[in-house]
Amino acid sequence: MNMHIREFAESDWPQVWEIIRDVVQERKTFVYDPEMTEADARMWVEEPPGLTVVAVEGERVLGTAKMGPNRPGPGSHVSTASFMVEAGSRGKGVGRALCQFAVDWAEERGYAGMQFNAVVESNHAAVDLYKRLDFAVLGTVPGAFMHPELGPVGLHLMYRRL
Amino acid sequence: MNMHIREFAESDWPQVWEIIRDVVQERKTFVYDPEMTEADARMWVEEPPGLTVVAVEGERVLGTAKMGPNRPGPGSHVSTASFMVEAGSRGKGVGRALCQFAVDWAEERGYAGMQFNAVVESNHAAVDLYKRLDFAVLGTVPGAFMHPELGPVGLHLMYRRL
Repeated sequence: MNMHIREFAESDWPQVWEIIRDVVQERKTFVYDPEMTEADARMWVEEPPGLTVVAVEGERVLGTAKMGPNRPGPGSHVSTASFMVEAGSRGKGVGRALCQFAVDWAEERGYAGMQFNAVVESNHAAVDLYKRLDFAVLGTVPGAFMHPELGPVGLHLMYRRL
Repeated sequence: MNMHIREFAESDWPQVWEIIRDVVQERKTFVYDPEMTEADARMWVEEPPGLTVVAVEGERVLGTAKMGPNRPGPGSHVSTASFMVEAGSRGKGVGRALCQFAVDWAEERGYAGMQFNAVVESNHAAVDLYKRLDFAVLGTVPGAFMHPELGPVGLHLMYRRL
């Protein structure tokens, strides 16, 4: 796989929207509204100081990430990020590359840490990846995510210093 | 004090905005943008299924709360709430009454729990109140709130079942 990560361009949108739509409709990994419209999904495209990127192989978008301050004002020195990988490209290191990109990006910009607010406990691929990249679970809200097959599962708050 | 709690009405807005503006400019208790405009602050007024209320004594607004689902879709069975009390009315049970109102409201509507996403660790009045109302700290993001006097202090994730 000859993948690289670059800033999101408007011409990526149809592929990015398709990834977002599939992920939210699956209801297994993101606490987003499964009935999100294409217009709602534009929140994925960050304005500065945030950034949205895509992992591409040629013209094909394999995954996407957004990153930026987790909260405004007195919380803006801690970053957050989100990652989505299209179904056919999972398990190939795309998520890992996107996550490493986001960590490096936030570190370079002087953020004190990176926080993931709601990592679905049963999403082992994500939880394990984040742990390998030095994120720790700071706490878990019990049963806060309604999984279509597993029922209520926890949402982890995960964090690492930068 | 002859206080009661009722649904927010448009005529309350000037007083509610004043409370919000003072709280965010103080930068000690909320991770909101201190430069929030009056238009931005309208996010305090919830649409259904959420609710915004005021604690009033006669015509005077002593405090305000908003409540609703913490997250959309697969997370919408857990509620959240936020509370602000005007400076001159603190320490008089207004916050406690608003918090109890929100807990009762969420319980009546069948929410599984109530989650506070970012309680400033040094805001002892709030942390202690929530603990008295059976909320527990599930985790703390270290140094995630830049306090104007104390420097970086933690943000608690707090939760109780309903």
